[in-house]
Amino acid sequence: MKLTFIGSGNVAWHLAQAFEKTSHHSVAEVYSRSLTNAKKLTAKLYNATATNSLDFTQSKAEVFFIAVTDDALAHIAAEIRFPKDVIVLHTSGAQSVEVLDSIKNVKTGVFYPLQTFTKAKPVNFQTIPICIEVKDKLQEKLIEKLAFTICENVAFVNSYDRKVLHLAAVFACNFTNHLFAIANKILKKENLDFKILQPLIEETVKKAFSNTPEKSQTGPAARHDNKTIQVHLQLLENDTLIQSIYRNISDSIQNGHYVSMK
Amino acid sequence: MKLTFIGSGNVAWHLAQAFEKTSHHSVAEVYSRSLTNAKKLTAKLYNATATNSLDFTQSKAEVFFIAVTDDALAHIAAEIRFPKDVIVLHTSGAQSVEVLDSIKNVKTGVFYPLQTFTKAKPVNFQTIPICIEVKDKLQEKLIEKLAFTICENVAFVNSYDRKVLHLAAVFACNFTNHLFAIANKILKKENLDFKILQPLIEETVKKAFSNTPEKSQTGPAARHDNKTIQVHLQLLENDTLIQSIYRNISDSIQNGHYVSMK
Repeated sequence: MKLTFIGSGNVAWHLAQAFEKTSHHSVAEVYSRSLTNAKKLTAKLYNATATNSLDFTQSKAEVFFIAVTDDALAHIAAEIRFPKDVIVLHTSGAQSVEVLDSIKNVKTGVFYPLQTFTKAKPVNFQTIPICIEVKDKLQEKLIEKLAFTICENVAFVNSYDRKVLHLAAVFACNFTNHLFAIANKILKKENLDFKILQPLIEETVKKAFSNTPEKSQTGPAARHDNKTIQVHLQLLENDTLIQSIYRNISDSIQNGHYVSMK
Repeated sequence: MKLTFIGSGNVAWHLAQAFEKTSHHSVAEVYSRSLTNAKKLTAKLYNATATNSLDFTQSKAEVFFIAVTDDALAHIAAEIRFPKDVIVLHTSGAQSVEVLDSIKNVKTGVFYPLQTFTKAKPVNFQTIPICIEVKDKLQEKLIEKLAFTICENVAFVNSYDRKVLHLAAVFACNFTNHLFAIANKILKKENLDFKILQPLIEETVKKAFSNTPEKSQTGPAARHDNKTIQVHLQLLENDTLIQSIYRNISDSIQNGHYVSMK
């Protein structure tokens, strides 16, 4: 199939290259507000055109991926001039499929790869879950097939569940990474190397999946070791924000981490 | 060497067995308040005696490991009757070596394996950092040698640095695990499987160590995507504690995660 990417950020960067590597697909165009950025991506592709115009009425592409920031998504989608009868997919975890409703005469859907992307780091899509959603049932098979060409782990996930999945991923990955950053800063102050924590962190992840995270919980809060908690809060007493993260998570561990959702 | 373990919890459980596996050492006694618990561990050992008495004046052990909860440590240490000239080591990350000062006529120190232990899960000590501290310089070589018999990664860490290391480990592991538990609960409500997050979590850990966690930070807070942050806070609006964890960590990410320690 012929594909076009609106956006040249981390998601477009890896998706476009992954599709071409299958040799089932080719990328027709890459759009970015900055032509320079669009060209950086087309330089990695076989025969794609870089553009900063949103007029695609002459495009030969059959599927359009809109991979832009959530804030820009609705606005940019409304500006694009599509050819007739194409499929338009956005790649956002947090946005519903309806955000594309303003586009007429196209089929819409979502193609959300559940992974954290950085341009410099190669990605193996085979193991990444791809969550898809389509508004028109007739397109389901086609989009599913498209996803299966780059990945083994394809799931139909509706807009609400995708939002929930994205929220869970923010806790398990973005916030987890920030806790690593806090740990790193704490260690740096004493010239201790963050790498000393690597075996412990890797074991924590292994345990969470071989058992459950609830059953794997250890540490001062879990064993109600208030003496140690006080020592830690004292060490952090010059940083009220980090101290309140310490208190909140400790409280939540002791409350049996009940999550009540709307 | 002959070793005795005071305590039969997770740390004693794995350390005692790891030492005997080297065939350089044998465990003489295992103490627990509960004789049943002590016997569970001695059943795993060659020729160790289970006991619930703290009178070790007749013991042939040369090194005593006190592996009990931080709250009980000072109290139990003061109650034990040791043979003369033995080495007494506690295994706590958060307690200073001075907590053993009340014990007379022995050499004291700390032997802290930086890992999360669960009885049911085997442990490979080779890759686990062991942090040691001794009050008497003359004992340094001996304790270091003892540690090297089970592990390749031995570091001399003083009491303050060990406390800092333990605090960092609480953020990077105990708190991280709790974020996994929150993610799991969020997913469970919608019958989504926590395993779907495994590739994303594993990639997050890899990136944090191949780059730095600061440079790897992604997500709505990092890109100031307030639209998504509002969607997430709304999803959590029935749970003020989890909502405040979300807010605090997001604030901390946006503040450049500065940690100021006492």
